[in-house]
Formats: sequence, C-alpha cells, structure tokens
Amino acid sequence: MSFLRTLLKPSYTNNLNSKTHFPFSPSSSLLHTFLKNYSTSEKYGGLGPTKPEEKPRVVVLGSGWAGCRMIKDIDTKVYDIICVSPRNHMVFTPLLASTCVGTLEFRSVAEPIARIQPAISEQPGSSYFLANCTNVDPKDHLVHCETVTDGAKSLDPWKFKLSYDKLIIASGAEASTFGINGVHEHAIFLREVHHAQEIRRKLLLNLMLSDIPGIAEEEKKRLLHCVVVGGGPTGVEFSGELSDFILKDVHQRYAHVKDYIHVTLIEANEILSSFDDRLRHYAVNQLTKSGVRLVRGVVKDVQPDKLILSDGSEVPYGLLVWSTGVGPSTFVKNLGFPKSPGGRIGIDDWLRVPSVEDVYAIGDCAGFLESTGRQVLPALAQVAERQGKYVARLLNRVAKAGGGHANSTKDVDIGEPFVYRHLGSMATIGSYKALVDIRQSKDAKGLSLKGFPSWFIWRSAYLTRVISWRNRFYVAINWLTTLLVGRDISRI
Amino acid sequence: MSFLRTLLKPSYTNNLNSKTHFPFSPSSSLLHTFLKNYSTSEKYGGLGPTKPEEKPRVVVLGSGWAGCRMIKDIDTKVYDIICVSPRNHMVFTPLLASTCVGTLEFRSVAEPIARIQPAISEQPGSSYFLANCTNVDPKDHLVHCETVTDGAKSLDPWKFKLSYDKLIIASGAEASTFGINGVHEHAIFLREVHHAQEIRRKLLLNLMLSDIPGIAEEEKKRLLHCVVVGGGPTGVEFSGELSDFILKDVHQRYAHVKDYIHVTLIEANEILSSFDDRLRHYAVNQLTKSGVRLVRGVVKDVQPDKLILSDGSEVPYGLLVWSTGVGPSTFVKNLGFPKSPGGRIGIDDWLRVPSVEDVYAIGDCAGFLESTGRQVLPALAQVAERQGKYVARLLNRVAKAGGGHANSTKDVDIGEPFVYRHLGSMATIGSYKALVDIRQSKDAKGLSLKGFPSWFIWRSAYLTRVISWRNRFYVAINWLTTLLVGRDISRI
Repeated sequence: MSFLRTLLKPSYTNNLNSKTHFPFSPSSSLLHTFLKNYSTSEKYGGLGPTKPEEKPRVVVLGSGWAGCRMIKDIDTKVYDIICVSPRNHMVFTPLLASTCVGTLEFRSVAEPIARIQPAISEQPGSSYFLANCTNVDPKDHLVHCETVTDGAKSLDPWKFKLSYDKLIIASGAEASTFGINGVHEHAIFLREVHHAQEIRRKLLLNLMLSDIPGIAEEEKKRLLHCVVVGGGPTGVEFSGELSDFILKDVHQRYAHVKDYIHVTLIEANEILSSFDDRLRHYAVNQLTKSGVRLVRGVVKDVQPDKLILSDGSEVPYGLLVWSTGVGPSTFVKNLGFPKSPGGRIGIDDWLRVPSVEDVYAIGDCAGFLESTGRQVLPALAQVAERQGKYVARLLNRVAKAGGGHANSTKDVDIGEPFVYRHLGSMATIGSYKALVDIRQSKDAKGLSLKGFPSWFIWRSAYLTRVISWRNRFYVAINWLTTLLVGRDISRI
Repeated sequence: MSFLRTLLKPSYTNNLNSKTHFPFSPSSSLLHTFLKNYSTSEKYGGLGPTKPEEKPRVVVLGSGWAGCRMIKDIDTKVYDIICVSPRNHMVFTPLLASTCVGTLEFRSVAEPIARIQPAISEQPGSSYFLANCTNVDPKDHLVHCETVTDGAKSLDPWKFKLSYDKLIIASGAEASTFGINGVHEHAIFLREVHHAQEIRRKLLLNLMLSDIPGIAEEEKKRLLHCVVVGGGPTGVEFSGELSDFILKDVHQRYAHVKDYIHVTLIEANEILSSFDDRLRHYAVNQLTKSGVRLVRGVVKDVQPDKLILSDGSEVPYGLLVWSTGVGPSTFVKNLGFPKSPGGRIGIDDWLRVPSVEDVYAIGDCAGFLESTGRQVLPALAQVAERQGKYVARLLNRVAKAGGGHANSTKDVDIGEPFVYRHLGSMATIGSYKALVDIRQSKDAKGLSLKGFPSWFIWRSAYLTRVISWRNRFYVAINWLTTLLVGRDISRI
C-alpha cells in the first residue's frame, strides 16, 4: 500500500533532479490510471487510509484559534497532522482592529501555521493544504476538499479527498448580517487580515479624495463619515482605534480635513452588553469624549453610500464596518450532523460529534447538544483556544492508549469531560484606556478594572499571548514606533 | 479673489462643527454656480491662479525619486507645493525586490509624501492630490487632473484643474514590453509596491498549490518555475533574492516541494551589461552557483502558463516577472512638447521644457533635447534624485530673486546648468554578495568591488539613503529578523 500512498501524494516522490532516492520512480501512466480509479473525476487525487503500522492521521479543518491551538499541542511523534484551511496563517484577532489604522503592521498579527507547528512543513506525513472542505463523509472517514485558487487565471480549482483517522472540525463561523440587504455588498467585516487591509485602503482613499478641490461639502462629509455597526468588543475597539487615529494622525497629517471626519457607532441595544454596568458607563463616556457618536438604532437597509435605520432616518457613510457577531457558516449548515441550539455542530461533553466515530468539533462552529444540559459557549477566542488544547490532549492520550487509528477508540479511556472557566473579558476603548472584567458570568461578583492600568494589562496580556517571539517582537516595535512617530499613512 | 479660492478649495472652509472661523460661510448655491462657470462640466473644480501677494504655487506631477526629492528640497516659506500622483508615497525601488520574498516588509520601503514634506499636510496652500494628470495647458498655466478612485464602487472619477506658477513634470516612465503579446496580461512588473505584493501572493499560492495531493508532476514543476525576463539590476536582484528564499526558507518551510522550485533568468544579451566585465562574470558564477538558470533568449510570445522564445522553444512558468527596462508613458507620448531621442520630454541644460514658460521635466520622463548636444541620461534613481534636487534649488533661487510667479523668470539669473556625475552602480546577487562599480562610464577606469564587502557597502549605502528614520529603523529590524528567524511566509 505504501507505494499507493506515494502515488497519491506525489509531493513526496522525487523528480529527476532530486537528491533523495525512493525504491522506485512512479511512471506517470500508472499515476494517471490510479487517479482515474480512485475517483470519479480525472482531476481527483488524495490521501488514502493509513495502514496500521503507520502513524494515524489527524485532519484539522480551519486555522483559527481552535484549530491552531490544537495543531500546536498535538503530539507529532504519534500523529501525522494535516491542516486544511483557506488561509495559511492564524489571525491574532484581538489585535486586528489596530492594523486598520496602522498602529500595527498586518504581518505582526498573522502567524503562519508552519511556525505554529513546524512538523507541518518538515515531516513527510504532515502538511498544510490551501483548500476548503466541501463535505465530510464520516462513514468512510473521508473529507472532500477543493483548492482555493484566489482567482489565479490559469488554475482550475482542484478537488481531492483525504482519509482521516481523527477529524477536527474547527472551521469557525460567519459574520451575521441578519438578512439585511446590502451588507455583503457595501459593508466591510473585520475578521480577516484582508478585511483590515480593505478598511485601511478605503479609509485612506476617502481621506485623500475628500481633499480634492471642487468637492461638494455634503460629499466630503459623507466620505469622511465612518460608521461602525455593532457595539460588541470588536466594534468598540475599532471605534476607539479610529478615534485615536483621527485625534492624533489625521489632525497632524490630514489637517485640511480634520474637522470633517467623524465616527458613529450604531448598536441596537447596549454597547459591550456582556460587561459590568460600571465599565459600560465608563466606556460610553470615554468614547463620547474622544468624539465617537453613539447611536441606538436598528439598520434596515444598506445602500452604496448610505444606510437606512428602522425609524426611516438615513445615515450617509464613506466607510461602513459591520461587526454584529457571528452565526453558523454555510458549510456547517450543510453538514448532516445534529445541531446545537443556534445551529452549530452539536457536540457532547468531550467535544465529540456523538452520532459518528472519530469526529470532534471545536471553536465557533461547535455547540453543546441540548441533551448535554450545557449552554452553548460564546464565540470567543478563549473558548476556542481552550477547546483546541483540550482535544489535542485527549487525542494524545488516546493514541498512547492505542486508539489513534480510525474506529479504535471504543475501549479507550478518554478522560474527563471539557470544562470551561471564563477568565474574564477585555476591550480597549482608545486613548490608552481599556476595560477588564474578570467575572465568571454577567451576574457574578468579581474584579473589574478600567482606564490606563487595564489598558496596560490588556497590552501586556496580548503581548504574551501572541504566539511566536517574532510577532511579539514586531508588535512591541510597532507600538513603540506608533508612540514615537505616529502611524504610517502610506496607502500601499 | 480670495473668497473664490476658498470656494475652489473647500477643504479649507469650515463646516458647522468647525472651531476655526472664516469671515463667511459659502452657500452651496454660490459654490455650484461658480463651479459651473469655471468649467464645462458640473463636476469640475480646481485651484485658480495665485495672486501677486500670495505665495507662488509649484505643482509637481509624480511621487517617484525625482518628484519626491524636489518636494523635499523646495522652500515652503516661498512656495506653496501641490503634488499630484496616483500614489501617496514614494517607493524605495532599490529594496523593492526584497519585499517580494519577505526579507523586508512592504511598508518599510514606502515613504509617505507627507513625511517627506510636512508642509503638504500642514500648510493651507500645500496639498497632495490622489489623481492622475491628464493634460497640460502651458499657455494658460493649467494642468487637468482626474482622481484615482481605485474601483471604489460609489465614486465617479472627479475632474479638476490646477493653475500653476511653476510646473515640474516628474511622472516617470512605463515598463517596456516591446509590443510582445501577453506581457501585460500574464507577467508581473516590479516597479510598485502592489507589484511586489502580487508577486509574493502568487509565489506563496504556487508553493501551496504544488503540495496538494494528486497534482501531476508536470503541473507541479510548472507552478514552481519562476521565470524572470530581463537581466538588468532589477531582474538580477530579484533572481538573487528568490534563490536566497528558496535555499533558506523554502528548504525549511516547504520541504515537501523544495526539489521542484527553480529560477530561470532570460536575457537577450548579457546580464548586467552596464557593469565591468569582471563583475559580470562573477555575477554569472554566483547566480549559477545558487541555482539560478541563466538562459540567453528572446521572448516572442507570452501565454497564460508558458512563454515562447524566438527559437520556438517553450518555457512553462508558474510565476513570470518582467523587468526589461522602461520607455515613455502614454501621458508623456500625448503631451505636445518636443521630444528627446527615445521619446522623452525634451529638456534644455537647466531641465526646462524650452518651448514654454515655467515648465520643468525631471527623472525618467525627461531627456536632453538633441540640440543641447548632451546624451539622454539613463533611467536611474540617482539621476532622478539629482535632478529633483537641482530643480528645487533653481526654483528656490528664482523665488528669492522675485521670479516665483508665472511668467516672471525672464530677467532672473537661474544659475549654472545641470551637471550629472555618475556615482557608480550597485547590484546584489543574493547570498550576501553584491557588485559595486564605481566608474564614470562603461569604458572608464575606476574601482569595482564584489562579494561580501560590497554587499555590506550596498546595505549600508541603502540604509542611510532610506529617507525617514522610521523606515531606516524598520529596514534594519526587518534585516535582523530575517537573519535570525527567516522570512515570513504568511500569505495575507
């Protein structure tokens, strides 16, 4: 079987110039025939099942907090690890808002998967594949994938199958739009580095266009009106960063238009609703002081240059950032697994998908089944990270007990169920100020902090959580240069 | 007249919330009427002529080496300065090749115009406009411009006119394709930051796709074949950077495909033809040693995944970088001025366009008229920079002698003609090696260096020439981290 595996994954075979020597050199006709037999389409390769004497294969779908923590902690001496994701890096989401205005560089908040788990690039059985999973076939322990070619002209998307011994679904969630017309077309989300890049380009474009001679007053005001919809931590942090940028850098570098630029934060209920009341009032005061207009309203319709609220009022905008939380992705909706309340993949106390063998779901795409009697956990980085860590430990234990291969965990002790302990919430609100709410739940008692001390805690906490030393170093350097010479405004 | 100017440039007028007070607040109907009268289209504003008691206005077209050096050196106490360019930053071109493979960050090689000349963002009469110049009307001392909206959906390009007292055309050149079919569609140039970003994205995409299971051997080899056309300094430096990236980072981070990736440099004549023979041979040896295949050939046709040489041979490629030098841009071709040999804007010994008043041309878009008896200077950063410096000094002197306003230089002594003294050429060839050729011309005697010492000179020379301290610092930090932890491979 091993030659078949070699055929199926020709990246490990040698070419004529290669210095490594394999016992045989596969002829291309044999490869072709095999691929034809293996699948329905000619363009269809894959990785076949592992043999009992080989390392079992863990396939992870996704490269967010959950997937990457899992990839980092898995024992690569006992497992081969395959990661399938449309992006080859993890985004350090809590710092993403800072990259939009140039406080941080984009690359400082992106951690390549190969740096998180070096085995991915070094070990022959481990790999990262730039692809989306299109379907899961739990009966045959197979996932169907399709490459992401990103509009590259000369490439068709390439389909392939992967056999897994263990499957970890950590594919995340999608931004909620509540079915509001025009959100996808005209608003920008703030979930990926390319979103931050788009926001930055648009913001700088609008700043420059508003200075062109002959532009009408109304148009100028519209271009420089930045609207954020959604008053959760992301929306509040972005508004805070934006007002810092305006107060410091726009006043200095775009002095001509400084009186025209405004930030409006629209929220249907209360901002930072999960935080302590006292902290929330503090946040409202601080944001208002730094010029952010807080509007309570419900968005009904989004048009190219204005949005319509449910009371009929119109809000012209030049930049619209949408951060109203997340919901289940189309991929998750289409999977045939039972669902948790809220439509996530239903999991049991051990984060397993209980109806099938060897499938786990973690992070924003997973929620406890109603039958567990447990609440669905919030879509937070700390939940995802803890779940990734838990599953890695569980799988390491399973493999050591001889249950690493497919359909072999029946008699293995998988240990204690997953327990989540909330470590508190943090959010920055600009002007070197932040909120830290260290309570177990909304109604519990506990420590809550605000102002500069908590901003300092926030920065330090994040600095030590940025995964690689390289990025910790760059984040520190970026913060230092922003403090000393201001934010960079080149629109590249 | 001053209220008209205010109307024409409403960025300096106040809005209702503004704290600055102007003697009047222009009604929008007045503005509208004025704009209608001023131009043929309703969407047409601009800056009218300066009055004798106002500072004269210098308009610079372009933000490359020539334009930015000019902007930096102009005396903003005697002139208002307006820069019109499709990009708000200068690209530090000698280091651009390093950004493609992640040795340097993109932003480390981009210098915002507002950082080069702070008056641009601080003084009310000085500005940067994100626009292209579409035409020059030297009789009326006017330039016609159109905003660059970069595909922003809700914005039409906006036309406006600028009156100038002095006009500096520094709009640069365009990449030469010699009319070869398919170059614009399939090859990537290496002249702007967005080109480097595109090369990087494509290179990383190909590296990842080539590792997908089931891919055919031929396709894998094609995807990982990087072809560079043009053996001048840009092509050689990029090939060198690419081979460094392959030898160090690909071997480590993409170990699965390391034996498939190759670099081919195609040149019709000799590589680095302007350099000393001995240096050229050294470069050929070094490049070959680090795995770059040097091919002498002429490209006849470029297809989506292969190029055809004039001897009929086919070269499949995954990445194609085109760096065969530059020629006159469409804008320059369409200008009604007499041309130099090679089709550039013809200039006299003082870099003036002699047929008209108050127009200067510098950098790659300008060449000495045949009547001057001087040779057209090569399209080099050092030529452009020296010309920018010269014109700034000339104009500062003119203003102090009372000739700053339009049509008033007739009786002013404008000083000595421009003299160019070549300071030598430098090129890196990868593996911490470089060539330095300090000779006045190809046939002259002089110092030429190679190897590590000249690489060190090259790095130091560039570090001190990067304009701002911020970027000098970032370039040093980038080099340090590349040396210590390798290049970043996140595809963002």
